[in-house]
Amino acid sequence: MARRPPPLPAFVEDAVLAANQAFYDAFAGRDVAAMEALWSREGPVACIHPGWNPLIDRDEIIAAWTAILRNPDAPEVRAENAVALVLGDTAMVICHERVGGALLACTNLFRLEQGAWRMVLHQAGPVGEEPPARDEEAPPPHRVH
Amino acid sequence: MARRPPPLPAFVEDAVLAANQAFYDAFAGRDVAAMEALWSREGPVACIHPGWNPLIDRDEIIAAWTAILRNPDAPEVRAENAVALVLGDTAMVICHERVGGALLACTNLFRLEQGAWRMVLHQAGPVGEEPPARDEEAPPPHRVH
Repeated sequence: MARRPPPLPAFVEDAVLAANQAFYDAFAGRDVAAMEALWSREGPVACIHPGWNPLIDRDEIIAAWTAILRNPDAPEVRAENAVALVLGDTAMVICHERVGGALLACTNLFRLEQGAWRMVLHQAGPVGEEPPARDEEAPPPHRVH
Repeated sequence: MARRPPPLPAFVEDAVLAANQAFYDAFAGRDVAAMEALWSREGPVACIHPGWNPLIDRDEIIAAWTAILRNPDAPEVRAENAVALVLGDTAMVICHERVGGALLACTNLFRLEQGAWRMVLHQAGPVGEEPPARDEEAPPPHRVH
């Protein structure tokens, strides 16, 4: 059989952005099982919610997400301006989150595990001002929407 | 010559924590040249200061650090509770920062480049409450101090 060539960089970025979107789909859809499944099981993980102390235990991270997703008063969430920055077998996604009326800046870090990009870090914190307007003639190559 | 065995995991974590400490030494020492040198040059980088929009251009990141470090009114900074989480050729450090009277939670991500751990991400955001007291009988394995 012919060996397949390595994936093109743009495909890697698309796969990372798809993993990032799956995270926000689980978040917006209040899907605890999907949220649990997308976090890495093969190594260390960390999560820093806005205003919280860091969590670095997977069980604590999933318990916190379960509480957030099951809270009927939790606001809507939407990701914007996502950019994938690939570092080999790990990749960062830098994006904004709209959570209720708040604007947050966010890092999501993923690691390639058995062919799938699994989340190893989520950190979000408040932003004091709207992001600068995009130059429409030179859009960034990768956005969630 | 005998081949050297791979480094023990604890040595890797120590090297990552040393890179993290070098970042805070440059920050506290207002050392622009050291700050510039420790950021990765071989791939993408990102920086999210508290309240800021994300920066993903190396020149913009260094310009922002230069402005911060040269500001005579900038408060003192100190890192606490640093934990290294190694993901292969990248590694996260999760820690707190004391900046003036503020408590921040922080992720610093490093990548191994030609034998040196170079910074690829810094994100810090405010924490609403003091971290839980450590269990003195089961301290975490790695702290900055």
